[in-house]
Amino acid sequence: MKNRKLYMQIYDYYKDLIESGKMPEGTRLPSIRRCAEERNVSKTTVETAYMCLCDDGYILPKNQSGYYVSNRGNLTKKQEIKDEKLNQKTEILYDFASSGVDAESFNMDIWRRYVKSALRHNERLLFYGDPQGEYDLRCEIARYARETRNCVCTEENIVIGAGVQTLLNILCPLIKNKKTVCFDDLSYRQGTAIFKDYGFKVNGDRETSNIIYTSPSYSTRWGDVMGVQERFDLTEFARQNGKLIIEDDYGSEFRYFNRPTPSLQGLDGGENTVYLGTFSKLLLPSIRISFMILPQSLTNSYKKKKDLYNQTVSKVDQIALCSYIRDGHLNSQIRKSRKLYSQKSKTLTDLLIENFGNQVKVLRTNSPLYVRCRFEVNCTTEDFCRKAEANGILLIQTNSNTTFPEIAFDLATVGQKNLENSVKILKNVVRNG
Amino acid sequence: MKNRKLYMQIYDYYKDLIESGKMPEGTRLPSIRRCAEERNVSKTTVETAYMCLCDDGYILPKNQSGYYVSNRGNLTKKQEIKDEKLNQKTEILYDFASSGVDAESFNMDIWRRYVKSALRHNERLLFYGDPQGEYDLRCEIARYARETRNCVCTEENIVIGAGVQTLLNILCPLIKNKKTVCFDDLSYRQGTAIFKDYGFKVNGDRETSNIIYTSPSYSTRWGDVMGVQERFDLTEFARQNGKLIIEDDYGSEFRYFNRPTPSLQGLDGGENTVYLGTFSKLLLPSIRISFMILPQSLTNSYKKKKDLYNQTVSKVDQIALCSYIRDGHLNSQIRKSRKLYSQKSKTLTDLLIENFGNQVKVLRTNSPLYVRCRFEVNCTTEDFCRKAEANGILLIQTNSNTTFPEIAFDLATVGQKNLENSVKILKNVVRNG
Repeated sequence: MKNRKLYMQIYDYYKDLIESGKMPEGTRLPSIRRCAEERNVSKTTVETAYMCLCDDGYILPKNQSGYYVSNRGNLTKKQEIKDEKLNQKTEILYDFASSGVDAESFNMDIWRRYVKSALRHNERLLFYGDPQGEYDLRCEIARYARETRNCVCTEENIVIGAGVQTLLNILCPLIKNKKTVCFDDLSYRQGTAIFKDYGFKVNGDRETSNIIYTSPSYSTRWGDVMGVQERFDLTEFARQNGKLIIEDDYGSEFRYFNRPTPSLQGLDGGENTVYLGTFSKLLLPSIRISFMILPQSLTNSYKKKKDLYNQTVSKVDQIALCSYIRDGHLNSQIRKSRKLYSQKSKTLTDLLIENFGNQVKVLRTNSPLYVRCRFEVNCTTEDFCRKAEANGILLIQTNSNTTFPEIAFDLATVGQKNLENSVKILKNVVRNG
Repeated sequence: MKNRKLYMQIYDYYKDLIESGKMPEGTRLPSIRRCAEERNVSKTTVETAYMCLCDDGYILPKNQSGYYVSNRGNLTKKQEIKDEKLNQKTEILYDFASSGVDAESFNMDIWRRYVKSALRHNERLLFYGDPQGEYDLRCEIARYARETRNCVCTEENIVIGAGVQTLLNILCPLIKNKKTVCFDDLSYRQGTAIFKDYGFKVNGDRETSNIIYTSPSYSTRWGDVMGVQERFDLTEFARQNGKLIIEDDYGSEFRYFNRPTPSLQGLDGGENTVYLGTFSKLLLPSIRISFMILPQSLTNSYKKKKDLYNQTVSKVDQIALCSYIRDGHLNSQIRKSRKLYSQKSKTLTDLLIENFGNQVKVLRTNSPLYVRCRFEVNCTTEDFCRKAEANGILLIQTNSNTTFPEIAFDLATVGQKNLENSVKILKNVVRNG
């Protein structure tokens, strides 16, 4: 009881500061430890208070160390609208603009169990691992990529790394001879940055590039998928013109529900494509395990250099993930996430139609992670999102050049139970113009 | 009992293959899983058998996935002597040539406990972390570096990464304007490789370089340390000539027992030195956590780009390490390792004198990780090490241009209890010329 009082005090203290605007968006709260010391309470008490503030949307740990007064998802967007935000302090109740993982979608207990048992491999943990990644894990990943993404590969072609960037740091020096890379999505700054670091020219023009960096499963943020014909054409075009394809298959697990589309790597027999995959979206963003599949030619040049590059993923995580996949948890995890996101996407769609009737037109998406729609009301997309934001709802602006506002909902961070409430708020926004 | 029989069968099976030379050095054993399937026994049974083969020096998991018939430590050396090795199959009993961590030196149970509790921070693990590294951990590391290495820094200057190379991948683009880097130890290929990848010229000449990459705590492999005066001169030289120092303080925790030597970073006020530190040698090589301390100027340019680089260390490990340091386990871990290695180094020294008397001259080292000595027998260092190796003992050749063989023992992987036996074998090597 005492503890409850204590954390409620802390909760109210910050709630007031934030609501009164004394703590503007983006302000960092003191670290749990410092706060505990200052108030002379236990870290748990502070943690509980912060958790409540999180749940009620006042603060977010997202993309930050410690906790921050809830901010507006992706940086660029934030900068654009910072100025008008300054004198407009509303805490975000429901954030449909930033990605992450739904708390319900990941069974932490299972993962915990595997990490614990991995920690028992004392003998194995005493030595540096294979720079390429643990053999057993590479076997499992190769099998997984063959079965779910029809990739053409063996464990020999797999390189494991702590995130796609780490893998690009190994790949770029291997393909130095190629000078120019075309990014289908130039706004993917964390990708372009690495290539620029190595002195590559980065552009958006496939014709004049030696490398084509593409995300066919994700060609737009709300899940438009590159069709099969287009894929054939691309691999054909690349082969005929001696261009290397880098297929960043990020998010593929949440595509192709009814009609699976083969990976580019599979389509060209794995000879001319480097395939990049990650487990961060499937498991936890905070688990940093990605992999790349190299064509045999690049595999050979990599082997000559592999001892120069240390493995970046801790062996514990590798051992854990290996057994986790082997025992079928990855697949059931994928099924579970798909189910959850599909439900949420259906619920939200129904709610929108139920509340807005003819005023809303729900647009097709290939991803259960997003719901896209057009509101047939007389204002620009910007105004619409600004008003929604002023009422505590963050939305993605999908298209600004339309007569009617077109927006998208990212379903990752808002829980099923909060969808109804958020739509009701949105209804008021529209009603009150 | 049944199990014991089973694993002894597997043990003997491979022991014979290896001793008979049917499985030459470097041959990979089937993965535990495959072996278990083939023989239709439990993975644990196979694991136990492999463990015994490890303990008896027949196989090693070192630097490899799975298990390999014990090989000869570092690659370069291996290549040099591969040819004469081919028709000379002896399994290595005691490997004094390759580094790692002594099984006794690390208390896995404590670390396990911290990882387990880190895995309970569900809310925190659902989001991507700070690209720079978790705030709390950076605070602890900054304090640790200030207290143990008199570094001048705050958490703001700390960048965390999965290994030194990952940090160099962030650093190199920040110092692109500098074109040439001097490595005091050009044989550190994993360092030079990264700089070459970014198009830096790498040489061994401080005069003509813009960057000086040095390991003052480790200026030779067996622990020669750069003296204070030399450090002052170096920082002075660097500042006057506008050269940036990169201080790779790898292994510093095992130096300076009686007379601590300040870090270069501390000596120059942290303005002109990038400090690199790692926890792999302190904890486990398989835990990949390193950090760099940037001068304020570079900290500022890093901040402008930090959102372009994802953090590579899993948040679980960061949370665990943070509490681990905070609760004082890192310091006691260091004390414990020092004690263990000092004991081993003393034991080995005594054994050498006891067994070889005037024939051996133990040379001064500043590191308890190594024992260096000269044997006053009439053969070259190469021959001496080759004979030792033929009898199952791997040694480091420290100097080939001496009348008497000069060698070093790396104490990491051979347990205290095996020291006596290894010296006895060495005695026979010398006796039988």
